[in-house]
Amino acid sequence: MEKTKVGVLGATGAVGQRFIQLLEGHPYFDVTELAASERSAGKPYREAVEGRWKLSADIPEYAREMVVKGCKADLDCELVFGALDSSVAGPIETAFAEAGYFVVSNSKNHRFDEDVPLMSAEVNPEHLKLLERQKTRGKIVTNSNCTIMGVTITLKPLLDKFGLEGVMLFSMQAISGAGYPGVPSMDIQGNVIPFIGGEEEKCEIEPLKVLGKLGEKGIENAPFKISSHCNRVPVYDGHTVCVSVKLKEKASVEEFKKAMAEFKGEPQKLKLPSAPERPIIVREEPDRPQPRLDLMEGKGMATTVGRVREDPLMDFKYVTLSHNTIRGAAGAAVLNAELMKARGLI
Amino acid sequence: MEKTKVGVLGATGAVGQRFIQLLEGHPYFDVTELAASERSAGKPYREAVEGRWKLSADIPEYAREMVVKGCKADLDCELVFGALDSSVAGPIETAFAEAGYFVVSNSKNHRFDEDVPLMSAEVNPEHLKLLERQKTRGKIVTNSNCTIMGVTITLKPLLDKFGLEGVMLFSMQAISGAGYPGVPSMDIQGNVIPFIGGEEEKCEIEPLKVLGKLGEKGIENAPFKISSHCNRVPVYDGHTVCVSVKLKEKASVEEFKKAMAEFKGEPQKLKLPSAPERPIIVREEPDRPQPRLDLMEGKGMATTVGRVREDPLMDFKYVTLSHNTIRGAAGAAVLNAELMKARGLI
Amino acid sequence: MEKTKVGVLGATGAVGQRFIQLLEGHPYFDVTELAASERSAGKPYREAVEGRWKLSADIPEYAREMVVKGCKADLDCELVFGALDSSVAGPIETAFAEAGYFVVSNSKNHRFDEDVPLMSAEVNPEHLKLLERQKTRGKIVTNSNCTIMGVTITLKPLLDKFGLEGVMLFSMQAISGAGYPGVPSMDIQGNVIPFIGGEEEKCEIEPLKVLGKLGEKGIENAPFKISSHCNRVPVYDGHTVCVSVKLKEKASVEEFKKAMAEFKGEPQKLKLPSAPERPIIVREEPDRPQPRLDLMEGKGMATTVGRVREDPLMDFKYVTLSHNTIRGAAGAAVLNAELMKARGLI
Amino acid sequence: MEKTKVGVLGATGAVGQRFIQLLEGHPYFDVTELAASERSAGKPYREAVEGRWKLSADIPEYAREMVVKGCKADLDCELVFGALDSSVAGPIETAFAEAGYFVVSNSKNHRFDEDVPLMSAEVNPEHLKLLERQKTRGKIVTNSNCTIMGVTITLKPLLDKFGLEGVMLFSMQAISGAGYPGVPSMDIQGNVIPFIGGEEEKCEIEPLKVLGKLGEKGIENAPFKISSHCNRVPVYDGHTVCVSVKLKEKASVEEFKKAMAEFKGEPQKLKLPSAPERPIIVREEPDRPQPRLDLMEGKGMATTVGRVREDPLMDFKYVTLSHNTIRGAAGAAVLNAELMKARGLI
Repeated sequence: MEKTKVGVLGATGAVGQRFIQLLEGHPYFDVTELAASERSAGKPYREAVEGRWKLSADIPEYAREMVVKGCKADLDCELVFGALDSSVAGPIETAFAEAGYFVVSNSKNHRFDEDVPLMSAEVNPEHLKLLERQKTRGKIVTNSNCTIMGVTITLKPLLDKFGLEGVMLFSMQAISGAGYPGVPSMDIQGNVIPFIGGEEEKCEIEPLKVLGKLGEKGIENAPFKISSHCNRVPVYDGHTVCVSVKLKEKASVEEFKKAMAEFKGEPQKLKLPSAPERPIIVREEPDRPQPRLDLMEGKGMATTVGRVREDPLMDFKYVTLSHNTIRGAAGAAVLNAELMKARGLI
Repeated sequence: MEKTKVGVLGATGAVGQRFIQLLEGHPYFDVTELAASERSAGKPYREAVEGRWKLSADIPEYAREMVVKGCKADLDCELVFGALDSSVAGPIETAFAEAGYFVVSNSKNHRFDEDVPLMSAEVNPEHLKLLERQKTRGKIVTNSNCTIMGVTITLKPLLDKFGLEGVMLFSMQAISGAGYPGVPSMDIQGNVIPFIGGEEEKCEIEPLKVLGKLGEKGIENAPFKISSHCNRVPVYDGHTVCVSVKLKEKASVEEFKKAMAEFKGEPQKLKLPSAPERPIIVREEPDRPQPRLDLMEGKGMATTVGRVREDPLMDFKYVTLSHNTIRGAAGAAVLNAELMKARGLI
Repeated sequence: MEKTKVGVLGATGAVGQRFIQLLEGHPYFDVTELAASERSAGKPYREAVEGRWKLSADIPEYAREMVVKGCKADLDCELVFGALDSSVAGPIETAFAEAGYFVVSNSKNHRFDEDVPLMSAEVNPEHLKLLERQKTRGKIVTNSNCTIMGVTITLKPLLDKFGLEGVMLFSMQAISGAGYPGVPSMDIQGNVIPFIGGEEEKCEIEPLKVLGKLGEKGIENAPFKISSHCNRVPVYDGHTVCVSVKLKEKASVEEFKKAMAEFKGEPQKLKLPSAPERPIIVREEPDRPQPRLDLMEGKGMATTVGRVREDPLMDFKYVTLSHNTIRGAAGAAVLNAELMKARGLI
Repeated sequence: MEKTKVGVLGATGAVGQRFIQLLEGHPYFDVTELAASERSAGKPYREAVEGRWKLSADIPEYAREMVVKGCKADLDCELVFGALDSSVAGPIETAFAEAGYFVVSNSKNHRFDEDVPLMSAEVNPEHLKLLERQKTRGKIVTNSNCTIMGVTITLKPLLDKFGLEGVMLFSMQAISGAGYPGVPSMDIQGNVIPFIGGEEEKCEIEPLKVLGKLGEKGIENAPFKISSHCNRVPVYDGHTVCVSVKLKEKASVEEFKKAMAEFKGEPQKLKLPSAPERPIIVREEPDRPQPRLDLMEGKGMATTVGRVREDPLMDFKYVTLSHNTIRGAAGAAVLNAELMKARGLI
């Protein structure tokens, strides 16, 4: 298989850095372009991120001396990964699509465009058919918000096996979710902030599109309701979400756990490079998952579930954890692109 | 009013320390006895808590040289505040009650004894009538678990005005709630632990007794269901709880907020020394309450509520914060004792 | 004594907020003006600091509705406290001094002006004589950097009793020292940053002026050398500094501790409102001082010293802690102003 | 090369867990025995560490079902790695040595035995000759305290090139250095503890033996003095140490940095499996090293140095960081054993 040339839009930000890390030595993709704001354009990447590279491993060798470009649609590549801030991502991504590039984006701007799939590779690979309806030469694919990415994967087998009537979410989100410089330390040191702007709205609508059915007129949202409480906690990486669900059909705790533990999606069947062996790892210890211990399961691409038990008000409750900048952002986009490549779309 | 002589059982622990701090110069009570385990007995208090005094202000002068006694029911006082570990509190408190002492306890052991009130002074002062049914010479009064103390106060006006059908609780609890040495730093540093042993069970049943009606045969639990998710977060003091409620009757957001903001209980009417002016402070900022900013409202005795809004699945959702070792423990017990004193029970 | 009308320049920042808190109900001063950048000018104070008020107690009532003005020298007051960012403080303070105001500043800009005293009220009250040499109608008084404020107070009795040859400082500084938004949480969460821009330079020169002698030509720096290592740690408030000192004369550990414990300055003799009873509190426990436990000694105005012991390389070593935004900033400035008032300078 | 059978004493503790992780698939060693206290003996390893496994990756497969034994000298192996608590390590290690086992220990008990080398493989490989003087059938090798391990490596090239007259150390140590459960979260959350029992004594003497010369009568300590200030900070892994040094000979900053950056020891020459390519990495950024960013350099076996600059009191100052449970404990012991194996001692 010939490698596809790819670029990263917003390469200097927190999610952009993850793309650069995850794409190092990738078997399908070859990073030929890094693009960012005009402030960074023209600088070698190492200089553009000086004092802003926040991953514990150093900048991959391949990227250090690459010269960062501006976000114009004249890059030498076929596909761009989108890690731009939502304040600018919309029109830039559109311009790239119009110019013929595949845009695999982590930004929220096009998530609800009628013909744009809001993809989670294990959950709704069939939504890629929407690409045929996009009028532009290039095509846009988005992935969902970091918080609900892992949650939605756990909801998929529940919806399929038992049906869902309602879902209550309560998140405890890591500081890296706000990017850099993001949350001031004076706000979160030894503290909890019970609010993240716009987050609850996303959590209550995005899973419905991801879990929706591809119909004549686009995606028909999954027919259940979600309520969410989103909180910021002093954790570096890893969003923990407590979930209570009301099912359509009865299930035992064992059936409930089994549905999640045995779930596999197309990325697993295709053995895509970034696909974790098991998308959902169900643990039995009473006090798991925990960010410290479970975050890097499946190289940060698995979702860990624990504390599955009955819920006195709804039917079941459990806790999920997934890595917000890998599974919840850059890793999810890379997996989407791998799926497109494996299907011959690119 | 003559001061009542009081003692503190479990005076060296985290809650015991709060009792000693809150009772300094108290207008109703005079601390004449400090009692703890045999290990501490015979030592001056300052020596007994050496390396274990964890409050930011120093040990109050009055207590420094008091000699700690063992927990035998021969103390020179009329009332004892109970801050013992639940592994030993039960029989000790019973012994004190049998010997004629009032026992105002923060320990969980007697909370569900049929004739023992589970008190929250603003919520169920009428439950004090249960004391008449206690057969012992002395009487036992308990207060509820630290997590649901503040929550229950917010539920009281909702139950009275609109009725409650269901309550969903998600807690983010401070490390001081586990006492000292409590949670190892390696477990909670930059981490979240989605489990606290026994806590969810307490959260799902205690509010129902506190909010229950005094009937012929004791307390009839309030007739609604609670589901809870309890989490430990790296916050020193202050339990934050996200709450979703289903009401019996319709209400507007404004009515909902007003019910809480205007709520006053008997401690406010009697102007008891530890009573906050307003038991519930409703804030309008989008990102409050926060432990860092709101914890000490009403000297740690007020509950702060924020983010009141509609809930797509239930009816309303909001966030509460209260101080777990003041409002949720020692302060609540002191307020209960003040109420008993004001009513002439002691 | 008639109260002096005062204003606060930079009233919306972290240090400005402390001024507003510390000046509430002050017996000498009456806050008649709040000033800040043009962005805030014209707004009620509560609105100007919305989302930026970071003290755990709420905004004092007196300040909530005061209308913030710009930093022009036409304020209705006699003295201004300076809490401006150093990027703008210099010319603004000069303008106020020229217009006849007393300027009692926490900013660094004028600290090394020849005729401007770099004051620590307990250490060098005689430096106030420098004011006579200032040519402007009004006068400027500065206080030192937050990190070395407490350290310098501990060095004063050592210098006086034993003489100093060299001082080695290692700081562990709180995040509030960087103001708001200041240090990004992604930088300091569970981390140490061994660098604070410009801090080591200040730590190595400012104490020498504070401890210097008033001579014909101004202040003659104290004749010893300082080396400093400055670090940022994930602590909210309170700078901890490890100190090793080389003395000119021999001393025993007991003499060394006694010199610090017995030290009192003019603020103590004059019983100034903000003066702690003892400027230096020497503790004997092996593991003190600690920010959590000792920060608020003397209402945040005392410096706590612990672990005094011999040093194998120099002569003695010890640990100091003081509150960086109270003793190290706003509180120090208020104390300086109190001293000026008590001396009849204002 | 045939693999040597090894055991781990104290396999369930924090350092024991690191040994098990680092020895997974090791090219020289085959873990055939895990030993711990009687409480754990007889249980499968996964059960013995239930709730106590604190590494972010899961328990290695090879160890999960191994049955833990007691610490008696009848294990099926040739060498034991020592990770026992110092309260019990001394006689157990002696018993193993007498029974003919090689003991490569991280415990402090035998560090100052006359004939026992206190090893740092890059620094003093020639000290292994001391083994010939040990009278027991088996031999004991120790490594130094976690805090000074990395520091001592940086001192080695300085001592060799320029000579050392004095060293001042100031540590900011991670919580994992105290083992599990170790430091209570109530003590260290958002706090600094300027004391670690026994640590300063170790820091002031151990480097002198490690850097000492092998003489007729054993090791002659290196002839310079060290003073240390040891602090605990809320960091999970990684000890940061600020260092000031006084040299015997003059050096420029460039020479000073070059001496460290170019340093290589015997493990590098022999390309031992755990040897980092460069023992010391000198960084030029103003704000490095930082635990978050630099801890895992060389798979946790490299020491990162930054901020090299002149010191106004001594000669130079710099900051070092190394991983306290890898380079500072288990990894150092494994490297020592690799060196012994490569030299044919085992």
